[in-house]
Amino acid sequence: MMPINDEFYMSLALDMAERAQGQTGINPVVGAVVVKDGAVVGIGTHLRRGTAHAEVHALNMAGAAAENSTVYVSLEPCSHYGITPPCSQRLIEEKVQRVVVACEDPNPSVAGQGIEMLRKSGIEVEVGVLRERALKLNRKFNKYITTRLPYVTLKTASTLDGKIASKSGDSKWISNEAAREIVHTLRHQHQAILVGAGTVIADDPQLTTRLSVPGLSPTRIIVDSTLRIPDHSKVLTDGLAPTMMLTTTRASENRIAALRDRGIEVIVCGDGPQVDLELAMRLLGQREIASILVEGGGKINGAMLEQRLVDEIMLFLAPKLIGGLGSPGSFVFTGYERMRDSVVLTDMEVEQIGDNICIKGRPIYSV
Amino acid sequence: MMPINDEFYMSLALDMAERAQGQTGINPVVGAVVVKDGAVVGIGTHLRRGTAHAEVHALNMAGAAAENSTVYVSLEPCSHYGITPPCSQRLIEEKVQRVVVACEDPNPSVAGQGIEMLRKSGIEVEVGVLRERALKLNRKFNKYITTRLPYVTLKTASTLDGKIASKSGDSKWISNEAAREIVHTLRHQHQAILVGAGTVIADDPQLTTRLSVPGLSPTRIIVDSTLRIPDHSKVLTDGLAPTMMLTTTRASENRIAALRDRGIEVIVCGDGPQVDLELAMRLLGQREIASILVEGGGKINGAMLEQRLVDEIMLFLAPKLIGGLGSPGSFVFTGYERMRDSVVLTDMEVEQIGDNICIKGRPIYSV
Repeated sequence: MMPINDEFYMSLALDMAERAQGQTGINPVVGAVVVKDGAVVGIGTHLRRGTAHAEVHALNMAGAAAENSTVYVSLEPCSHYGITPPCSQRLIEEKVQRVVVACEDPNPSVAGQGIEMLRKSGIEVEVGVLRERALKLNRKFNKYITTRLPYVTLKTASTLDGKIASKSGDSKWISNEAAREIVHTLRHQHQAILVGAGTVIADDPQLTTRLSVPGLSPTRIIVDSTLRIPDHSKVLTDGLAPTMMLTTTRASENRIAALRDRGIEVIVCGDGPQVDLELAMRLLGQREIASILVEGGGKINGAMLEQRLVDEIMLFLAPKLIGGLGSPGSFVFTGYERMRDSVVLTDMEVEQIGDNICIKGRPIYSV
Repeated sequence: MMPINDEFYMSLALDMAERAQGQTGINPVVGAVVVKDGAVVGIGTHLRRGTAHAEVHALNMAGAAAENSTVYVSLEPCSHYGITPPCSQRLIEEKVQRVVVACEDPNPSVAGQGIEMLRKSGIEVEVGVLRERALKLNRKFNKYITTRLPYVTLKTASTLDGKIASKSGDSKWISNEAAREIVHTLRHQHQAILVGAGTVIADDPQLTTRLSVPGLSPTRIIVDSTLRIPDHSKVLTDGLAPTMMLTTTRASENRIAALRDRGIEVIVCGDGPQVDLELAMRLLGQREIASILVEGGGKINGAMLEQRLVDEIMLFLAPKLIGGLGSPGSFVFTGYERMRDSVVLTDMEVEQIGDNICIKGRPIYSV
């Protein structure tokens, strides 16, 4: 049982924010709770970019009760006119007594100014309640808003001997149903999904979000240095989500034009032979893709890792040993000379999902 | 807190037996507790083959108090004259009132007859208290006594992408200190350790048990189809534990004779080209090797698995990604055509050991 204190209300704000992951685009997820005379009088969460912030929803619900209340908000209230007016201003107008903030907003247009505005107006402000949880929750936003580069999560499913298919190419099934449900949840929580042309040619996947309840499908990004995927590929024809193609100048002008005519965004990333993935990340960031789930085969996984473009890794391991000298591995790349040069996962979390194991962590690049 | 009941005393018997794992040779580990008038009056555990059984130690300690007592014993008391006289006879002579047994002895010379002897003499016998734990504890003995084949545990340590070394062959270090302590505990708990000639040539290992307290070193078994390991190899010279060589008729008679002169047991297993591992297991069983820890490289691991000779697998995973197309994998073998043909681990247990992950299970062979 949780005792009632600042953490009690802040965890409600964070719980609400968590459920909105994936629906706020390049915006952070934020929750707010207004408490007055020992009871909750307003709650709110930011739902969608361009609509009201969490504090506004919560204050609207509280109405006149907002005066002299305590407001818990999982991210520093904004101080700037963005698409909506500054929340700090609104809190001041409502004459709230105390504001409890989980963490500062790393957005350079806020970065402490929201807190300063509140304090200057005489409101008591406390910062740092459940800070770690709040920072982790918005790790995608925090990277994008400070670097304009997408936050990259790499997901792969392999056998215990590190294979993603048998020597004949069979991969049905490596992961179990529960693991696949988590993968579709990840798709909902990322703005884009990225795979290689080889995956599209071999499996003709939809790359949409399919859950037991409706979810949001990510923009589909296909890495295809020559635009060789067939015209009838589902990602080009089904219209279930936007599709972007990353290519090189090796692709013909005609092919590029034909795809663009069909509404496919084609982004030329370098002269090849392979797509310049580092450049691609910059160009995708410019197009407001703030988070990408990489579900590539071994080569895409290896290339993304080798180029240090991955922020987070989720490895699903099935309790299987498949063998096969030519069986494709989960990370195909030149590799490092010495064991101590290897990429190391930190902040590792291990979870058993039925008979699958999920290993999550942040890669630290040694070389 | 554990309430006092049959399980309370049986778990003590099992705790004692557990600590003796590795020191009883081909014998099972067994613990016994004598309880009289609400108090423990005797405890015992079987320590070494050829010495007293657990019941005998416990009854000796109880002395006259054994009369009308309850005796808890983690394995059915024996009914036959082995190296020592039958324990059931002793329990009858001591006029104990009740005997509680965790599980029947699968040894064909006992197999229920010990329990029958007790019951016939009027002693109340209960069977099955903590049966699963007792069966698991003696899984090595249970296999050997019924098949005369050694119980094989395969241990390997790899990166998350299934590699046991970098492309340059560097493997220092994959696993952490705590994982290595567990590996040395496994060595103590197995009668033999098995590696390939390649490992001996590359690393010149001692293959002994090195713990913070003294332990028993296993017999060292080297798989070497042509007896090519150098004469100065530690396993041939250090005298720290017996060494056996598994070879083929491809090895020269002179080489075989020279090794035998040095006290090395050489076992010829087939005409090659590789050592016939299935035959090797039978011949080792005949030599009273009841348990083997395989610490081979990828090829030995792959061959043992492919030939369905492995009873238990322990995989240590380090939180690393090393890559490298030629980096050696943890299981090198031809592999299966389809994912559903793969070897599947059942009874899987996953444990985090610092930043390493230990995955334990029993392989089920599909094809």
